[in-house]
Amino acid sequence: MNLKIAVLPGDGIGPEVVAQAKKALYAIGEVYNHEFVFEEALMGAIAIDKTGNPLPEQTLNLCLNTDAVLFGAIGDPKYDNNPNAKVRPEQGLLRLRKELGLFANIRPIKPYKSLLDASPLKREIIEGADFTIFRELTGGAYFGAKTLNEEGTHASDLCEYSEEEITRIAHLAFKSAQNRRKKLTMVDKANVLETSRLWRKVVQKVSANYPDVALDFLFVDNAAMQIILNPKQFDVILTENLFGDILSDEASVITGSIGLLASASLGEKNALFEPIHGSYPQAKGKNIANPIASILSAAMLLEHFGLFKEANVIYQAVEKAIEYKVVTVDLKSDSKFGTNEVGEFVSNFI
Amino acid sequence: MNLKIAVLPGDGIGPEVVAQAKKALYAIGEVYNHEFVFEEALMGAIAIDKTGNPLPEQTLNLCLNTDAVLFGAIGDPKYDNNPNAKVRPEQGLLRLRKELGLFANIRPIKPYKSLLDASPLKREIIEGADFTIFRELTGGAYFGAKTLNEEGTHASDLCEYSEEEITRIAHLAFKSAQNRRKKLTMVDKANVLETSRLWRKVVQKVSANYPDVALDFLFVDNAAMQIILNPKQFDVILTENLFGDILSDEASVITGSIGLLASASLGEKNALFEPIHGSYPQAKGKNIANPIASILSAAMLLEHFGLFKEANVIYQAVEKAIEYKVVTVDLKSDSKFGTNEVGEFVSNFI
Ligand SMILES: CC(C)[C@H](C(=O)O)[C@@H](O)C(=O)O
Ligand SMILES: CC(C)[C@H](C(=O)O)[C@@H](O)C(=O)O
Repeated sequence: MNLKIAVLPGDGIGPEVVAQAKKALYAIGEVYNHEFVFEEALMGAIAIDKTGNPLPEQTLNLCLNTDAVLFGAIGDPKYDNNPNAKVRPEQGLLRLRKELGLFANIRPIKPYKSLLDASPLKREIIEGADFTIFRELTGGAYFGAKTLNEEGTHASDLCEYSEEEITRIAHLAFKSAQNRRKKLTMVDKANVLETSRLWRKVVQKVSANYPDVALDFLFVDNAAMQIILNPKQFDVILTENLFGDILSDEASVITGSIGLLASASLGEKNALFEPIHGSYPQAKGKNIANPIASILSAAMLLEHFGLFKEANVIYQAVEKAIEYKVVTVDLKSDSKFGTNEVGEFVSNFI
Repeated sequence: MNLKIAVLPGDGIGPEVVAQAKKALYAIGEVYNHEFVFEEALMGAIAIDKTGNPLPEQTLNLCLNTDAVLFGAIGDPKYDNNPNAKVRPEQGLLRLRKELGLFANIRPIKPYKSLLDASPLKREIIEGADFTIFRELTGGAYFGAKTLNEEGTHASDLCEYSEEEITRIAHLAFKSAQNRRKKLTMVDKANVLETSRLWRKVVQKVSANYPDVALDFLFVDNAAMQIILNPKQFDVILTENLFGDILSDEASVITGSIGLLASASLGEKNALFEPIHGSYPQAKGKNIANPIASILSAAMLLEHFGLFKEANVIYQAVEKAIEYKVVTVDLKSDSKFGTNEVGEFVSNFI
């Protein structure tokens, strides 16, 4: 297979971890005879520094015209604590999601056997947990109109959803549930929010097409509790943008480290793959960042193009690295291995 | 002291648990020579059933003219799964919060020594955790304009905040931090939301008055993870309405049961005390609901009126109940004790 892949390393630890994902893809290409052509582009704080724009047109054009995007991370503390900054790295990411139409963000959560003790949760709570979060990614308060009055004393964010936006991701989530344990949990705040009531209504309607999938509903406050109390109850979780952001970071504790979680963002035409961790600026350049999430995002990319065998080889390589404790310090505090060594191990295993 | 207390038992397990809180207050009144006059009123689904209104004017008037409100819970599944219901129990609670101006909801989180093993989190993670969440309660997406178009295909919720709304709760939170470990963590999503950027700016401004309190910021997704990874890092958490709703339910897992957590909702003139658990309709009438959260909300009521010694007696009684395992099934699956027995134990201890 021939794939043209846009690579956006971004900020902080982004470049370091993406380098390891590329290494794994190179190895797969060699062994299984695929041609992966990578083209790098600027994005995030680094793009602001160099061009004034967190998503330069050149980067956007590249992404629109490649088969897939391999994304690192964006974000820089110099913008976070400056509420007056007009241009921020996150705007680039949000615009990219919107322009590529990446409406579904898919985040699988499943602890590794050899890491069952790495979680702050008790082993018996997480052993056997295996669920996937479908987070809507191009709607909600992320993209609604924002206002700030002239005096800077009043602000607003509009959360909006349309039936169409809900329907398309609901179908994806139900289809995924059909291939899994056939349970879908819709998470919302329908006792307070109008948008949540629309979600509930539309998802009920879509569910008629999937009579083999059991549908239930949870309020987001309760869901935030249930994910910790009893994560095994979940199979597929479907939710809107902001709730999905919060719940998927929370759910990362089940696996022991957010450095293990990858995600796929899908649209009609485009697809982007990224670790769910952020730019983690404190770790930048220290060779301590966990590359596994980024490597797994490359595996999700392969799956997306039907290369299941190849993806599986990466999953196995990662499992071996974890089993042999070739992991970074987030997983083993006295580890001698760094970002590079873990990436080396994985690509050598392929 | 003379106190006139409005009692709103509400729906589901509300009446059962509030009855135990009243029992505890009666006992305190007897022993310490206070006169607590209780007046009950309708609210929630039961008020809709009887009057068509989840917050009848009579109930509102009573609450406006008493010293404090002791609240149970509201909510009924027959409304939750009906996105077309025009009148819902929650509207009553939201209106009550608004009319009483209860802008600050305070939720203390601290595990009991004898319950350190009841949490899904490992003992070493939660031992020593002790923080308080200050949740803004009368603003944000809960109260902003809501729309649903005629075809029922597009909905919106507006999240709004003003400098004034943020300032008043920020002062309360900083003052609380001064009396604690002098750390305040502001939780927001300032990398995406305009309202969050306003929060950040205003809280930074208010912090100038509290130079002895260390202020830091966390994005809500990260906070949802940190509360589980390392709850000991927190002292006071300050956040907006919806984030506070989600994070405080999540944080309840630290204590082992949401049935242990009480909250105080404060305004300029009025105050309301309630368990943070909801109406838990499945448990209604079975004498299995944990009354401790409601009893502790009564203790918070006493504290609010400066009756610290009396509040302490309740805290001690609850600790004894837990120590002697006179607890409901949420805390000990083979417990022989029910709602009534736990309430009896506590009031007898006073
Ligand atoms: C960086 C930020 C804008 C982003 C989000 O909130 O979507 C991140 O947290 C994520 O989950 O991908
Ligand atoms: C019942 C519901 C409207 C309420 C809220 O979301 O505020 C509840 O969850 C709470 O936390 O008090």
